[in-house]
Amino acid sequence: MVSIGFKAGETAIILIEFQNDFCKPGFPLYPGIETILKEYKVIENTVELVRKARERGVLIVGCPVIFESDYRDLGQEFGIKANVKKLGVFRRGTEGVEFIDELKPYIDIYVEGKRGLDGFHGTNLDVILRYLGIKNVAIAGFLTNVCVESTARTAFDLNYKVIIIKDCTAATSWEEQRYAEVKLFPLIAEVMTHKEFLEKLE
Amino acid sequence: MVSIGFKAGETAIILIEFQNDFCKPGFPLYPGIETILKEYKVIENTVELVRKARERGVLIVGCPVIFESDYRDLGQEFGIKANVKKLGVFRRGTEGVEFIDELKPYIDIYVEGKRGLDGFHGTNLDVILRYLGIKNVAIAGFLTNVCVESTARTAFDLNYKVIIIKDCTAATSWEEQRYAEVKLFPLIAEVMTHKEFLEKLE
Amino acid sequence: MVSIGFKAGETAIILIEFQNDFCKPGFPLYPGIETILKEYKVIENTVELVRKARERGVLIVGCPVIFESDYRDLGQEFGIKANVKKLGVFRRGTEGVEFIDELKPYIDIYVEGKRGLDGFHGTNLDVILRYLGIKNVAIAGFLTNVCVESTARTAFDLNYKVIIIKDCTAATSWEEQRYAEVKLFPLIAEVMTHKEFLEKLE
Amino acid sequence: MVSIGFKAGETAIILIEFQNDFCKPGFPLYPGIETILKEYKVIENTVELVRKARERGVLIVGCPVIFESDYRDLGQEFGIKANVKKLGVFRRGTEGVEFIDELKPYIDIYVEGKRGLDGFHGTNLDVILRYLGIKNVAIAGFLTNVCVESTARTAFDLNYKVIIIKDCTAATSWEEQRYAEVKLFPLIAEVMTHKEFLEKLE
Repeated sequence: MVSIGFKAGETAIILIEFQNDFCKPGFPLYPGIETILKEYKVIENTVELVRKARERGVLIVGCPVIFESDYRDLGQEFGIKANVKKLGVFRRGTEGVEFIDELKPYIDIYVEGKRGLDGFHGTNLDVILRYLGIKNVAIAGFLTNVCVESTARTAFDLNYKVIIIKDCTAATSWEEQRYAEVKLFPLIAEVMTHKEFLEKLE
Repeated sequence: MVSIGFKAGETAIILIEFQNDFCKPGFPLYPGIETILKEYKVIENTVELVRKARERGVLIVGCPVIFESDYRDLGQEFGIKANVKKLGVFRRGTEGVEFIDELKPYIDIYVEGKRGLDGFHGTNLDVILRYLGIKNVAIAGFLTNVCVESTARTAFDLNYKVIIIKDCTAATSWEEQRYAEVKLFPLIAEVMTHKEFLEKLE
Repeated sequence: MVSIGFKAGETAIILIEFQNDFCKPGFPLYPGIETILKEYKVIENTVELVRKARERGVLIVGCPVIFESDYRDLGQEFGIKANVKKLGVFRRGTEGVEFIDELKPYIDIYVEGKRGLDGFHGTNLDVILRYLGIKNVAIAGFLTNVCVESTARTAFDLNYKVIIIKDCTAATSWEEQRYAEVKLFPLIAEVMTHKEFLEKLE
Repeated sequence: MVSIGFKAGETAIILIEFQNDFCKPGFPLYPGIETILKEYKVIENTVELVRKARERGVLIVGCPVIFESDYRDLGQEFGIKANVKKLGVFRRGTEGVEFIDELKPYIDIYVEGKRGLDGFHGTNLDVILRYLGIKNVAIAGFLTNVCVESTARTAFDLNYKVIIIKDCTAATSWEEQRYAEVKLFPLIAEVMTHKEFLEKLE
């Protein structure tokens, strides 16, 4: 498969859950991704990615997950969702649910409605992208093999060209990170670093 | 068709666009619905509806439409959407986009993502309803034959039992209001007054 | 609003329920639409429409509704769906459920999954259209104010340019036909005859 | 998390792509899954699963993927979809696209519209399940980490209780099979053998 360039005006970067609960020391989900966050320099890379891409005309989309403070809209308390409630994360009105300050200035529009794994499920993400003529969807965020991957899978089914910015993602272990990067994503996406992506922008 | 009662715990009232831009004198969309708003006493009825229904355990769902202040997420500037932009209504951060003060205290949860006619399209409305075990969807708001009707049509396709609270809706003319109430809604919904609905709650 | 032309390669005609149950004398739903079918010459017009449009490169999409023979996939037995079951229409494997012979030769692809009013709900219609780069959706079929209108409303929310080919649609009365053509469709679509549509093809 | 039983009348088994192209020697996709198919005895297990579960009242849903013979509805020729076209699999009208004879007698209803990874995307799967009051979704089929997993992820977001019948699935390597079973599925599903599932049916 020969990879070609991406027209900036037809391209969006989807930032999945760059929220304090994941990204900042002292918040509950930080320890889980700390290793990869640091080794990949995910935050630094992502700031550089969106700053430079946005100057070129790429749409920057923030995609947070936000639950009501009583978690009435959590859905089933099972698996990963049971953990959300147990840890008390992603609650509306808390500091943890906020997008990180480093990225806020670059976000053009926030997706609304995300309550599950998939950034398209029950949200206006596809509405935003199709209303604005987006064809290429570059995805960054957390967890690589959970919400990033669910969003990438649906983007593929929706016929977007999908790009995974690997050094702007993190999982809870290198085993899961590598599995996603090497085994799964190549079936549905181009996988590259943020620097490679910036070079491919037209 | 024999109408039976609705279990309060399986019932939600969806309030479509009870926002200042529609409901308050001086705001751009008020003149269009003023006649029916007054003759039906829509605001008074709706306050009574949600106050009493909520006491009984019915879920009250606010469903606003909100566009970015530059309308980048408007979609096609055609027909009713061209009008939205021309009139400058439903802009994020304005007073007009706010739900009316009379209803705010009764709203359990707000739907996010609505940018089109249908309250289910690109939103978390179905997520909210199914996560909470809702089977009966009672709809009120504006315009009767536009957003209320689109939401009711999709609720029917989603297999919810649909109820239209007719004296809590308004169109821009009695011709359209009557067409919807008499010709269209009976194909997909039970049509009743707010008092009749309250009597049917179990 | 100035109407401009439609590029044939970006345009699809969606034929809603041109099935024997609706279109042929002796089948249960024919009497309901007979008046408008004859006065508008709907079948003749639609054959001319798709024959000429297809030669120009327009995609012709058949959109039938098909239920299992025991109606297990009917959903709620209420309103219009109760009527489907009572009349025994749209049953898989029957002659009534077949698309009419006059149109079959021109259909490029059939939509699968329609069980409700809206041709997009639970179907691959949006998949087909977006995979093939369609931007303009022209709609014909039955009933004007029910399935045609539900499909048109969702097409609008999906940001397709929507065209209603009015003399290729029929409702059960002129009152409903006229209401849809004059009051509702102009909010979301361009309304025109099949000859006007053919003239606008580029 | 304590696993409890599943009421048969609220449970469906979704059979993902048990089509000749995957399951039968001589067809293009068989060699890829042959190892796990044989070691797990996937076909034998699945026949036993659906035969016994159906007797108890579980709904058996066939979920094939079917493309037009010219692949006009394939979408992007990238990754796994490029492979579909290159190998000529899942083409309407071929023997390869048929569900395997061993399972046909047990299938209550077939899902229509699947063109991507996710059995819910652009299909009537959710319509079928919600119309029939299904709450528990047990998934079997191929590939474990591709279409089975995409379907399971969306089932979780739709708030179904998700069960993976692990010895009725296959991937192209044990590495991928184990990753899915051990690392990913536990976040969103209960993972069990077909015998364990049958024991949990109520």
